Amino acid sequence: MTITIALDAMGGDHGPRVTVSAALAFLESRPEAHVALVGQPDAIEGELRRLATGSNERLQVVPATEVVRMDEPPAQALRTKRDSSMRVALSLLRDGHADACVSAGNTGALMAVAHFILKTLPGIDRPAIVTALPTLKGHVHLLDLGANVECTGEHLRQFAVMGTIVATAVDGKERPSVGLLNVGVEDIKGNETVKTAAQLLARSGLNYIGYVEGDGIYAGHADVIVCDGFVGNIALKTSEGLARMIRAFLKEEFGRNIPTRLAGLVARPVLKAFARRVDPKRYNGATLVGLNGVVVKSHGSADVVAVRNALEVALREVRYNIPDHIRREMEPPPQRGLA
Amino acid sequence: MTITIALDAMGGDHGPRVTVSAALAFLESRPEAHVALVGQPDAIEGELRRLATGSNERLQVVPATEVVRMDEPPAQALRTKRDSSMRVALSLLRDGHADACVSAGNTGALMAVAHFILKTLPGIDRPAIVTALPTLKGHVHLLDLGANVECTGEHLRQFAVMGTIVATAVDGKERPSVGLLNVGVEDIKGNETVKTAAQLLARSGLNYIGYVEGDGIYAGHADVIVCDGFVGNIALKTSEGLARMIRAFLKEEFGRNIPTRLAGLVARPVLKAFARRVDPKRYNGATLVGLNGVVVKSHGSADVVAVRNALEVALREVRYNIPDHIRREMEPPPQRGLA
Repeated sequence: MTITIALDAMGGDHGPRVTVSAALAFLESRPEAHVALVGQPDAIEGELRRLATGSNERLQVVPATEVVRMDEPPAQALRTKRDSSMRVALSLLRDGHADACVSAGNTGALMAVAHFILKTLPGIDRPAIVTALPTLKGHVHLLDLGANVECTGEHLRQFAVMGTIVATAVDGKERPSVGLLNVGVEDIKGNETVKTAAQLLARSGLNYIGYVEGDGIYAGHADVIVCDGFVGNIALKTSEGLARMIRAFLKEEFGRNIPTRLAGLVARPVLKAFARRVDPKRYNGATLVGLNGVVVKSHGSADVVAVRNALEVALREVRYNIPDHIRREMEPPPQRGLA
Repeated sequence: MTITIALDAMGGDHGPRVTVSAALAFLESRPEAHVALVGQPDAIEGELRRLATGSNERLQVVPATEVVRMDEPPAQALRTKRDSSMRVALSLLRDGHADACVSAGNTGALMAVAHFILKTLPGIDRPAIVTALPTLKGHVHLLDLGANVECTGEHLRQFAVMGTIVATAVDGKERPSVGLLNVGVEDIKGNETVKTAAQLLARSGLNYIGYVEGDGIYAGHADVIVCDGFVGNIALKTSEGLARMIRAFLKEEFGRNIPTRLAGLVARPVLKAFARRVDPKRYNGATLVGLNGVVVKSHGSADVVAVRNALEVALREVRYNIPDHIRREMEPPPQRGLA
């Protein structure tokens, strides 16, 4: 089966300098994949020349004249940039010319344009952003990470259904456990939204295990953890900040003087192995779930390795056909006929 | 000036086994301090005997027959346990027999009982929990950490005033910068509560610097960061979980085989110096601000070093008289007379 991924070549902090290399590396390792590089042909072809790449029949350049800036308001990107690389890439997906779309562009704009172009699946009110994070036991799928800053309990229930399907697809788990992120594990804890969601989840048929506190994310208390986009975004970004501070402190301590530098030299392979385990690049590629199509968001600052990983995430999700599984799960049960 | 701290000797996961030792160590290093150990006299005196402590005129045992369990619902603790160690300790503070109260007990119960016994300061609708966290540049005071799971913009403004006073007291900063935790730094980002708070803060006279994202907490983007208690609690607990996972991964990598263990031996002093910098014990002692009195909450799992640190935090806050500063700050400006 041939799989074509439309890659927004202009997205992210680095644009074609990173996306083109990532596409080539990805194609090399995945002989069944095709990539449509969407964006300004001059920039993309210049980059292909710089990399001295011969013609590749699995690589196609699809022109788009405009670029959505990283700080552009989503409404403006949606209204005024009809020929942006992001929008053209999503249109390829909608029109069946691609099986997935990957972009490292502005998250808010990607969400708005994807929502407009692809529409949500039946039964899904709002798409959500989900990503995998490392835990003491493996990894966890956390959603929503910022698509919806205000949610109802019903939205959280829908996120739980989608998260379960992603965990099944990615990890092959039969009945992944689902936790609801809260400020405590007792029934009385939390705000009204969380309490409503808890009731809905308890009778949802999902493998709902109850409330999980913030430290339960990395402890691996559940396979899927659900929260509103405000809370999820703060949890994710706070983690990024803490990890960065810890790296800086470690580096500072090992760089303090000659003996500590020597110790750092000796410990280097171990520290490298450690760094690989928590490398954010390995976890690059957040999925926009709930849409008619596979859309993967790469981190804006992603490098070649990270964008390539986002392409891998897209490939895996196309293979499992996550949108189709969500559609079937959300379908109302057949009505008994009266005739 | 003599300062007396009422210590809930029964609070926390370890009770008198930890609190009594912590009180003794604290008294030894602080000749101006007195401690009232509040709780079941048998348990406290048994511990004093075990430690073979002679009489200490700066240490007093104040009897309280009941103990609030760590998982007890706050409303129940408030209604049924009139003679709990927590409540008696807070009453000593209210009645002027103590200058501060420290407890490692159940946070929700401590908040409820403290609110009931001490009342909030004029102009403060709700008390908040604030703590200092390490950053790349020093530390930040983050609030609210879980006292209020649903907040209005006005509540967040009040938290900003209180956080500013704490930062001034603890760090001696003249005009600490205040950030509002949000999912992005652009004006259009966030929910209604955050947007209202931003407007109130912009004209508050505080050194308000705008929105700060989750990674800005540890990057040191502001001296004070304000959020609702749901978000603050998740940010704090997520950080605790991530730090624990990172420690576990480091330990695992250094313990993998003989060469890595040798590397660990060489790197040990550096790793220890690093661990000290991010040691949660150094940051133990969250303050309940907005009440008529200094109340410090120690972590439930706190050990002797950590409880002692919480006593130090209380001492510092009594010296600066944080409640009095908040009272003056919130006082309405004098009305011009008409007579």
